[in-house]
Amino acid sequence: MTQPQIAFLGTGLMGGPMAANLLKAGFSVTAWNRTAAKAQALGPLGARAAASPGAAAADADIVITMVSDGPAAADLLFSQGVADTMKRGAVLVDMSSIKPAEARDHAERLRARGLDHLDAPVSGGTRGAEAASLAIMAGGDADVFERLLPVLSAMGRPVRVGPHGAGQLSKLTNQAIVAATIGIVAEAMLFAGKGGADPAAIRAALKGGFADSIVLQQHGERMTTGNFAPGAASRTQLKDIENVLSEAQSLGLALPLVEHMRSRYARFIDELDGAGKDHSGIYLELLDLNGMA
Amino acid sequence: MTQPQIAFLGTGLMGGPMAANLLKAGFSVTAWNRTAAKAQALGPLGARAAASPGAAAADADIVITMVSDGPAAADLLFSQGVADTMKRGAVLVDMSSIKPAEARDHAERLRARGLDHLDAPVSGGTRGAEAASLAIMAGGDADVFERLLPVLSAMGRPVRVGPHGAGQLSKLTNQAIVAATIGIVAEAMLFAGKGGADPAAIRAALKGGFADSIVLQQHGERMTTGNFAPGAASRTQLKDIENVLSEAQSLGLALPLVEHMRSRYARFIDELDGAGKDHSGIYLELLDLNGMA
Repeated sequence: MTQPQIAFLGTGLMGGPMAANLLKAGFSVTAWNRTAAKAQALGPLGARAAASPGAAAADADIVITMVSDGPAAADLLFSQGVADTMKRGAVLVDMSSIKPAEARDHAERLRARGLDHLDAPVSGGTRGAEAASLAIMAGGDADVFERLLPVLSAMGRPVRVGPHGAGQLSKLTNQAIVAATIGIVAEAMLFAGKGGADPAAIRAALKGGFADSIVLQQHGERMTTGNFAPGAASRTQLKDIENVLSEAQSLGLALPLVEHMRSRYARFIDELDGAGKDHSGIYLELLDLNGMA
Repeated sequence: MTQPQIAFLGTGLMGGPMAANLLKAGFSVTAWNRTAAKAQALGPLGARAAASPGAAAADADIVITMVSDGPAAADLLFSQGVADTMKRGAVLVDMSSIKPAEARDHAERLRARGLDHLDAPVSGGTRGAEAASLAIMAGGDADVFERLLPVLSAMGRPVRVGPHGAGQLSKLTNQAIVAATIGIVAEAMLFAGKGGADPAAIRAALKGGFADSIVLQQHGERMTTGNFAPGAASRTQLKDIENVLSEAQSLGLALPLVEHMRSRYARFIDELDGAGKDHSGIYLELLDLNGMA
């Protein structure tokens, strides 16, 4: 696949810099966004702006979608004409974070029309999107993934983690680990501080060891400095946790720590006005639990 | 303090290579160990072997202890003559992992005899001890810590985290984070695998991101390959957790995730013969919980 035509649907906070990196890498990109100005902003980098998702997809070899959730992705694909106008043999790469079951359903419906599908959600935030350093977790056929490697590599570090839906499962796995890690880092910072140690010095001392993580260094600092402006909002963290547990339930799995974090984030949001605060704000919920809020 | 005389008490699995690194850095070391052969083994590197802890400590500016627990450290200091023979103004550096309250008690009793004390437990295992790359978490007076920096730096990366006892508190903080991180990594590996993704690929995909940690990479691999030979035994992990909770109780703190992990490790040990298995073996307990063992 030399010189593929790419349609990029959803060029917002994440999709904008991702599409920009494709253009900088020399790919030919047609952009569409619900708010047209965000697609037109890519013009100086060489993107054409399309009037509709269907128009953007019509001459594309690869259609990339980056939208807010599963229903938004399904709407683009099956109500706004993308699946209808895509060329036979073209690939839909959905980089949105949606449920694994939704991804598998989309893949199946596209396959019935002779279209390939890859779920390829990302982790790394807007900073990773801008720096082309996103973790890209891909689910789908190995040969399709191999074919798309040059395109995905222009946006970050792609790894194929399994069949259709596995990319979304990997993203949920990421979110589950982050939730519980934030929870234990909150306990660690409270324990260290109350015990008379300097939490910042402890973060420095643990750096590079078995207890270390970006969460310890970054979210731990947010906790001890009281900076809970999002970042990633607690309401989004709770939604991710609920998606993990809904998928776990359909697999017949009990995940006790994830379940514990669901009840903690729900309490933070319902009783302590935490919805819009950064997910490191669970530290405030822990303080409240200890009568220290 | 140029050319300090160092006594190293407890030159076993950890203390042996730590003392060797002091010798390699050019320090003058007198070594003692309960099993004398382990002290004598440092002879070729230039160590003198002492016949008793008190004899080793008598002419030392710095006495380093590296033993199994608080009672063993107290026995050396106050029953086997170390505190009695140490020179006024000398420093006792206890690198053993003991309870914060024990460390504070030892510091107080030594101060009454005109002796300084630093608690300086380590993290990094025998590999870190050999490579002189241990995380060294120090609690005690800032000027004493500064004076000891050249000595501590020959064994690893020292950070002062607060006053007497804070080093031990930091070590417990480390162990608490590790316990819960192992717990969530177990859930992540089970969830990913049961959902049809490749856990090894997911570990690769998450590398460098918010969910990443040495625990995800190393203990996660142990879980999916079924390698539960210790490493760090689950009985030791449970002892560490109990020390965290005992210190938390004396601080009046509730730490729900640490409490959760206590009950999980206790169940693993009591009901599933987990005591001698690596702490990543909590994956087996999770499988059992899910009726999959």
